[in-house]
Amino acid sequence: MVEFDTDFPRITDEHLKQFVIDVFTSYGMRRWDAEISAEILVESDLRGIDSHGVPRMAFYVDRLKRGGFNLDAELEIVSESAAAIRFDANNGFGPPMAYKAMERCIEKAKQAGVCLATVGHSNHYGIAGYYATMALDHRGMVGISMTNATPLLVPTYGKTALLSTAPIAAAFPAGSEPPFVLDGATTAVAWGKVEIARRNKKPIPAGWAVDADGLTVTDPFDARALMPLGGEKDTSGQKGYGLSLMVEFLCSQLSASLWSRDVTGSRVDHIVPSDTSHAFLAIDIAAFRDLDEYAASADEMLHSLRTSAPAEGQTRVMVPGDPEREAYTDRIERGIPVHPEVVENLRELGADAGVNVPF
Amino acid sequence: MVEFDTDFPRITDEHLKQFVIDVFTSYGMRRWDAEISAEILVESDLRGIDSHGVPRMAFYVDRLKRGGFNLDAELEIVSESAAAIRFDANNGFGPPMAYKAMERCIEKAKQAGVCLATVGHSNHYGIAGYYATMALDHRGMVGISMTNATPLLVPTYGKTALLSTAPIAAAFPAGSEPPFVLDGATTAVAWGKVEIARRNKKPIPAGWAVDADGLTVTDPFDARALMPLGGEKDTSGQKGYGLSLMVEFLCSQLSASLWSRDVTGSRVDHIVPSDTSHAFLAIDIAAFRDLDEYAASADEMLHSLRTSAPAEGQTRVMVPGDPEREAYTDRIERGIPVHPEVVENLRELGADAGVNVPF
Repeated sequence: MVEFDTDFPRITDEHLKQFVIDVFTSYGMRRWDAEISAEILVESDLRGIDSHGVPRMAFYVDRLKRGGFNLDAELEIVSESAAAIRFDANNGFGPPMAYKAMERCIEKAKQAGVCLATVGHSNHYGIAGYYATMALDHRGMVGISMTNATPLLVPTYGKTALLSTAPIAAAFPAGSEPPFVLDGATTAVAWGKVEIARRNKKPIPAGWAVDADGLTVTDPFDARALMPLGGEKDTSGQKGYGLSLMVEFLCSQLSASLWSRDVTGSRVDHIVPSDTSHAFLAIDIAAFRDLDEYAASADEMLHSLRTSAPAEGQTRVMVPGDPEREAYTDRIERGIPVHPEVVENLRELGADAGVNVPF
Repeated sequence: MVEFDTDFPRITDEHLKQFVIDVFTSYGMRRWDAEISAEILVESDLRGIDSHGVPRMAFYVDRLKRGGFNLDAELEIVSESAAAIRFDANNGFGPPMAYKAMERCIEKAKQAGVCLATVGHSNHYGIAGYYATMALDHRGMVGISMTNATPLLVPTYGKTALLSTAPIAAAFPAGSEPPFVLDGATTAVAWGKVEIARRNKKPIPAGWAVDADGLTVTDPFDARALMPLGGEKDTSGQKGYGLSLMVEFLCSQLSASLWSRDVTGSRVDHIVPSDTSHAFLAIDIAAFRDLDEYAASADEMLHSLRTSAPAEGQTRVMVPGDPEREAYTDRIERGIPVHPEVVENLRELGADAGVNVPF
């Protein structure tokens, strides 16, 4: 969720996008690939999901410089039927590959009512939510997006990180109400939250992370890996573990890719294809019911949730996606607040790439 | 999850099924409907999910006696395309309606690769997992099953129960390894766990339930409704809320039924159609990849999870579905342990219905 940092210097989304395009193309990325990647990365910053936006540039650039991506890769169709399609990204850069796959998934759903697409041998694709919300640009379309990633989740009762944060994102349109947009990891939290606690030298809630013995910790410096959504067994952590495994099956097992245990990130000396995999589901609501009736019904439900009585001490009930939309409105208008250390890092990346830094 | 109660009297699954069939038909249910309902209810007991098996007979019988179900209902197709189908259950009994819908969903997935089915105007369908595991009877088929229910979940920062336990069940086959079967509510726990704590006069963990002000409670007698999976906001309860809302959209909004706020259960004086709704997804793995390669890959992943190092103090890591399968093996062989109060209640139901009670 979003934490507004009003003290940080603000950079316009246009400046950030141009910078990302310039850096990526300087390392040989095709122009369209760089443009769509900049769009997806900066959209993450606009939504307030700072962990997945330009602060990740260093990770991408490091891998680009070391030849970690196949910049000539084409998204290949391996198998296709009326409502199912499997792509191979051939180790291409994640965002453009995932974008094209979701675009095709939506087109197929318009024909068959529903389509499930999987993408194998891909790379980190940014925020899962971007691809889910692509569906909202098409009247009456629902989008769902999932991915696996490097191992970070310890199964309930285990002590080894074998699964990943495996996010589930879903976007359902409404009529006049803002849409419902879920975008969350199936781990209790993202690793970034543990890092923030370390910087602030503050304890973390039990149920976020485990130590090297697989036991829950409250000292963030003892944390070695993440617990599933739900935390420990007595608060149903095994359900989060199950949801993460469901995402894992849909992504890696339906795309014939590596499962999270073997997915490699940036923290390896020898660069090999990361073999990340994704799954997308698109649903054409018109295949089920009249769109105007759907819109009225969804509006009534979302409005009821948004206007329901808050708990004691709270001010309002939100629908998932509301905080991100409010961050977006603020940041489109006033610019994106970027941590000074990140600004410094981006300037270094820009100098290193020999591109203009417009901030 | 399963708690073995070795002290309880044990009844064979055959005796329980025959009893359920006799009671249901005595109230006018069609023979096949009663048979498949008995199969689904007792399967829940066999899997150790006691909250959804024969202990619920009193609930079903009460509604049957009060004319709450349309026993002549036919499962009607409202709209259909290659990979999407919407059914109307016309207030028919939940299990047979849901069974037929999932059967058709699987057949359609064999043609299109994937199928999403929704069922509107239905009733409580038992365990979500039953319909997911129906897919495992078909080579290379994945099953996913979801339902809404009566309002019991309070949205994050709210104080009114507006959504439901909204379970997500998923069954993925393997080769020689037992399959992965997820079956869990998107609430932190089922309400039954609060009731058990009340009986035992024991506190409940923070993050299970809220009081009338929407605040988390540890005294089970103060509990009024459930929190989402993840519990409070600082342990990511908003994600469980989002998952519950995703299930709600797929079920009620894609079937043109009431959303959970308005779904009625057995605790109302005036019986009206409950208007429960379900969603099913079936995926033909062969539409994505070779089935033998899938089986080998799934086996390797599941075996690795099952044999991974346990946390300190634990004995083993399980895969979701393992506890239920172990309960099944034990109960098929030795009978189903039924709480003495439930046995007494079933005998009364049997006497009232005028049927033979074989236990």
